[in-house]
Amino acid sequence: MNTPKIRVGVIGAGNVGSALVQLLNDESRHIALIDAATASLEVVGVAVRDLEKSRPGIDAALLTTDALALAGREDLDILVELVGGIEPARTYIEAALRRGVSVVTANKTLMAECGTELSQLAHQNGADLCYEAAVGGGIPILRALRTSLAGERIERVMGIVNGTTNFILSKMTSEGSDYAVALAEAQALGYAEADPTADVEAFDAAAKVQILSSLAFGTELCGEEISREGITGVRSIDVDFAGRAGYVIKLVGVAERVGEHGISRHTHPAMIPAEHPLASVHGAMNAVFVEGSMSGPLMWLGQGAGGEPTATAVLGDVLHVARNRVSGRHDVPFSVDDRLESVPAGEIASVFYISLDVMDEPGVLASVASIFGQHGVSIQSMEQSGFGDEARLSFVTHSAVTNNVRATIDELAKLESVDSVGACFRVIDGGIA
Amino acid sequence: MNTPKIRVGVIGAGNVGSALVQLLNDESRHIALIDAATASLEVVGVAVRDLEKSRPGIDAALLTTDALALAGREDLDILVELVGGIEPARTYIEAALRRGVSVVTANKTLMAECGTELSQLAHQNGADLCYEAAVGGGIPILRALRTSLAGERIERVMGIVNGTTNFILSKMTSEGSDYAVALAEAQALGYAEADPTADVEAFDAAAKVQILSSLAFGTELCGEEISREGITGVRSIDVDFAGRAGYVIKLVGVAERVGEHGISRHTHPAMIPAEHPLASVHGAMNAVFVEGSMSGPLMWLGQGAGGEPTATAVLGDVLHVARNRVSGRHDVPFSVDDRLESVPAGEIASVFYISLDVMDEPGVLASVASIFGQHGVSIQSMEQSGFGDEARLSFVTHSAVTNNVRATIDELAKLESVDSVGACFRVIDGGIA
Repeated sequence: MNTPKIRVGVIGAGNVGSALVQLLNDESRHIALIDAATASLEVVGVAVRDLEKSRPGIDAALLTTDALALAGREDLDILVELVGGIEPARTYIEAALRRGVSVVTANKTLMAECGTELSQLAHQNGADLCYEAAVGGGIPILRALRTSLAGERIERVMGIVNGTTNFILSKMTSEGSDYAVALAEAQALGYAEADPTADVEAFDAAAKVQILSSLAFGTELCGEEISREGITGVRSIDVDFAGRAGYVIKLVGVAERVGEHGISRHTHPAMIPAEHPLASVHGAMNAVFVEGSMSGPLMWLGQGAGGEPTATAVLGDVLHVARNRVSGRHDVPFSVDDRLESVPAGEIASVFYISLDVMDEPGVLASVASIFGQHGVSIQSMEQSGFGDEARLSFVTHSAVTNNVRATIDELAKLESVDSVGACFRVIDGGIA
Repeated sequence: MNTPKIRVGVIGAGNVGSALVQLLNDESRHIALIDAATASLEVVGVAVRDLEKSRPGIDAALLTTDALALAGREDLDILVELVGGIEPARTYIEAALRRGVSVVTANKTLMAECGTELSQLAHQNGADLCYEAAVGGGIPILRALRTSLAGERIERVMGIVNGTTNFILSKMTSEGSDYAVALAEAQALGYAEADPTADVEAFDAAAKVQILSSLAFGTELCGEEISREGITGVRSIDVDFAGRAGYVIKLVGVAERVGEHGISRHTHPAMIPAEHPLASVHGAMNAVFVEGSMSGPLMWLGQGAGGEPTATAVLGDVLHVARNRVSGRHDVPFSVDDRLESVPAGEIASVFYISLDVMDEPGVLASVASIFGQHGVSIQSMEQSGFGDEARLSFVTHSAVTNNVRATIDELAKLESVDSVGACFRVIDGGIA
């Protein structure tokens, strides 16, 4: 039998791109890859910005600086886009899709911005658009949502999908470090960038939540903003309190059903019970926790970043797309459920942890408690620590509507006896049996 | 566009079968299922043993006691086999496959016995054979190995794939119960059967390891026996020691590469470091931990049993097979790698935990240590507890070949000062960063 040939072009030869090209050219994997792709995969071009840079493992003859020409090559079967960001990535991808060339990308920003539109463009042209590597690095969660769980009614998806912030919070937990110290260490180790905004302010996690939500629930990928709260406000005293109360603080991205047609998506630090599977996701690892109405809880865990793990996810997509091309088909794009409505995070109920720096004087607790009561926020437990002007009150509420908690906080901040509101975190409900 | 119709027959209406039929007939899921299957799924028959039994949610007109006739129906597209065991399940499945009817099964015993042969039969007749529910209940691990990780070189697969034993060991860990007490509780709660042999002697786990190995490495599914050790020898003092040393005891099924073409498969209790993701898999949950050469560690966690979770996995397969039928294709069966050789568990090296009940008298440690030394088993740490004839020595070795450890144990048991060898468990290497 003749082995069909599938021609692959790669834009971007950073960590992921070079690991991918090396994987595709690895002689020891040659037979296994033909077996998995039902075709022989040939890298026909690698677009880079700088031709002079040394790129071990990549044949110099394949290099080009003209990414758009590569995307538009007559003989291309699959384009792999690994440059990230909106432009020029979008232009490259559209050029390929319009010619019926399938696209594999790791570009979460672009997918969150216009994934629905690009998926339709792929479909119209008989091509595939796959982006497993856009969420959770090497964790094959997107294909699982698309295939194995296609018949499941998912209630909630909750992920630790940003390795940088999980590394920082893990350091704060295990070593008692302050945020600034842990961030500096993350930067020194290359886990965080010089400008860490995209990670610590949860822009990255928010894009990933959008993508998870689109596959779990059928929400649109069209650049909608979702509620986003980062980790810059997390203090070591909060991490400490959480630990003593049996919790760890993690940055989570959540997409959940609210009623029949409501979907709420939000990212924020949360207190997770120590016995919850997400609590044991340490360092730069990522995990996605899915609650299905029939399947019950499911969790995927793995490396959320890094050249080789991410290249594995890209390779999984390339093999899938190659099999599709050989058999002359393409995936039906995930469908958008038009009945869904976005529910603002403020309308969602949750248990909250609230910490207040107060003056240690008679009547403080009474006035604080009365403000909680006025907003219908009921207190589950309270702990006072410190004395004098170092006193601190830590509350755990019963389940309360976020907007009511926010109003409580605003009013508490105005109280003369309250120096400052130190923290206000959602508390995630129990672990699993 | 006309929606194609896919006709499904179900053999077995126990927990899983009835949950599946209810899912397929659930009006509120109708559109979602058509979307996922690219077809309308119709249950055309449900074979049961007892027609008189009340079966809520299943139309009585669909019931039949003639499973073989159902499997051989002219108009059938998909047969779902949920009776388990070798026969008559095998006869039903072969009858369907020979007519080109695709089969979805949860039957781990049958797949471990002759999965390769049945997969080839499916392929020859242009049909699919899917068995996601055979391993890990609702956890979609098999499709991930077959698709997303198809291009990955996997080094080791390690699973907690038996909920009954994990429930028992979790009870022993959290409550200090003895094995017999924990087993009785598992039986009272319906987690363990009256005759618990298949679970506690690891027959169930061994079949699942065979299946995981076939997809991870390409070993054959042909009823080969693998090294199998159950949990009946695990004592509460061992669980205790493990806890104090920072470990939990779990029954694991392992399939791992040894050199270029060796694969070793074994099931046994093991000490797992508390910080390893598998250590936090509690109660009846299952998890599969995969170590890929590029992906790094990956873990899947979920409900390992139960009607609804398992039905979710079956449904995922039904949808996949339906899509294939609509588009006129079937999966290429996973390939068997003929170069692979089975490496006996005795040849594998591991760190071991060994506990000896000894007479507390001068020279005991010296004579014990000398026997370790003679077999080339080097000791990493030792702890003595108890006094007099209640004394116990607990050793953790450096990495040692299993056969050498076994020989050490045999000789130690003959020492006059050693009352008995209490335990000998493998210690799994570190967690992940």
